[in-house]
Amino acid sequence: MNAVSVPSAVLFATWMQDVQARIEGCLQALLPAASGTPTRLHDAMRYAVLGGGKRVRSLLLFAAGEMAGADSSALEIPAAAIEMIHAYSLVHDDLPCMDDDALRRGKPTVHVEFDVATAMLAGDALQAQAMYVLASRRFAADAAAQLEILEVLGQATGSRGMCGGQQIDMDAVGKALTEPELEMMHVHKTGALIRASVLIGVLCGAPVSATERGKLDHYAKCVGLLFQVVDDILDATQDTATLGKTAGKDKKHRKPTYVSLLGLGSARRKAQDLLDEALHSLDQFGPRAQHLRDLARFMTQRSF
Amino acid sequence: MNAVSVPSAVLFATWMQDVQARIEGCLQALLPAASGTPTRLHDAMRYAVLGGGKRVRSLLLFAAGEMAGADSSALEIPAAAIEMIHAYSLVHDDLPCMDDDALRRGKPTVHVEFDVATAMLAGDALQAQAMYVLASRRFAADAAAQLEILEVLGQATGSRGMCGGQQIDMDAVGKALTEPELEMMHVHKTGALIRASVLIGVLCGAPVSATERGKLDHYAKCVGLLFQVVDDILDATQDTATLGKTAGKDKKHRKPTYVSLLGLGSARRKAQDLLDEALHSLDQFGPRAQHLRDLARFMTQRSF
Repeated sequence: MNAVSVPSAVLFATWMQDVQARIEGCLQALLPAASGTPTRLHDAMRYAVLGGGKRVRSLLLFAAGEMAGADSSALEIPAAAIEMIHAYSLVHDDLPCMDDDALRRGKPTVHVEFDVATAMLAGDALQAQAMYVLASRRFAADAAAQLEILEVLGQATGSRGMCGGQQIDMDAVGKALTEPELEMMHVHKTGALIRASVLIGVLCGAPVSATERGKLDHYAKCVGLLFQVVDDILDATQDTATLGKTAGKDKKHRKPTYVSLLGLGSARRKAQDLLDEALHSLDQFGPRAQHLRDLARFMTQRSF
Repeated sequence: MNAVSVPSAVLFATWMQDVQARIEGCLQALLPAASGTPTRLHDAMRYAVLGGGKRVRSLLLFAAGEMAGADSSALEIPAAAIEMIHAYSLVHDDLPCMDDDALRRGKPTVHVEFDVATAMLAGDALQAQAMYVLASRRFAADAAAQLEILEVLGQATGSRGMCGGQQIDMDAVGKALTEPELEMMHVHKTGALIRASVLIGVLCGAPVSATERGKLDHYAKCVGLLFQVVDDILDATQDTATLGKTAGKDKKHRKPTYVSLLGLGSARRKAQDLLDEALHSLDQFGPRAQHLRDLARFMTQRSF
């Protein structure tokens, strides 16, 4: 385990808190006001997005964007849009027809707090709102760069990205998957949006070479998978109160996980290997990539 | 009723068939191939979109775009994107948690043919695919124009547009609405996307003055409401086989309609008034707006 030394750990923690607070403020402003009609829908959208989550995707987007020389104020809009997409995916994933989960981020899920129809519509409207803010606000160098960002996000969230991964997940319930099959699912379900977060951060900055882009994309792939391996370890080892969501639900739903497939020890070794590989792909970037490195380590530490 | 003379009716019918065939071909090409993983999701997306529907929104987009001097090849991508959004909204609207409907366009609804989770994911992925095609293909004059189109579509589909209208609809079940309240629901639920179709067609062409844009927007508002009044008349007067969807379902779900509120005669008079107002707002456009006029008449004729 590569330990973070105390002073840099403090700096990193401060940076994370700063980004998280900025994103929260930005989301407050970019979501429809709760007082506007239809108030129930706007309440549900705000409930789904605000006041919870580690904002991992925003942190990755900011770390990648700052590394590529983007002005940090340019990163708030795309980070907020990605959080809206992520929140919508959680709302739909928690519905009775999917994982049927009652707890998320320590609170009742949206369909429990409101109702199933409102939860579905809140998810739908959050996806539309993400598209709307990315198209209506000016944040990147030019309109062409913003279109490319919308293209990346559309690809990452659709049937060959996040939604596709959720379908593969549903189709896999009760089946014995191989490790490559499990990886394929996660590369889509959570990996695609994490990869998009890094790439969109990069697209907000100065142009990078194809080689650099490839290295950063490989980092993002490793981190996306690392995130999932850690999530599986946490689901198997921690209790509901600590997680803020229902613990042990993968086992209950007979869903294949890295822990069920590899065992706990090998899953932890896999996390370590993915961390090493993620860090290795940042070798050429020097101090500019420090927040990307710290984030990969931070994600790993959650599980040890 | 303004009758369409025989030769122009034939020309108009030919134009409609041509647009419908082009949109079908474009959708075939822009939807993910059924052979790609996850095949079940791609099957469901294609099932939801292809081979059905009058493509009213595409026809309006083409008529508005051609009026504004757009090359008709530039109109295919945005029209296809709007059909994806419209199809996703029908899939979600038909789900058990919403209208719980088993028949659409003469076929079993997506959740009946596949399952509820797949239907929800297919809807989600169709929304993402619409964003993806609008951002990844070049069709408008420049990137800024395409961003504006994405902005219009994001606004029209979100909580202050289509999704908001669906929420108002759900909240209104079993309640006695006034005519202005009913209108407010429809202006959101179906009106917003119809209005966006006309506006996006215009945005694909040469710039129009603010006055012209206002007139066209008023046309679109009238036509959006006209479409709904006619839909309510059809739901009350035609059988399931003719409609291709479950007839009488508004009454069954105790949903307020123009027929339940005004009676059949007054609903028909309202349709006629909306047609007259739509045509009046096209007065200054001359022969260029003929397809827009023909479409408004065509939509009205369905109910007489």
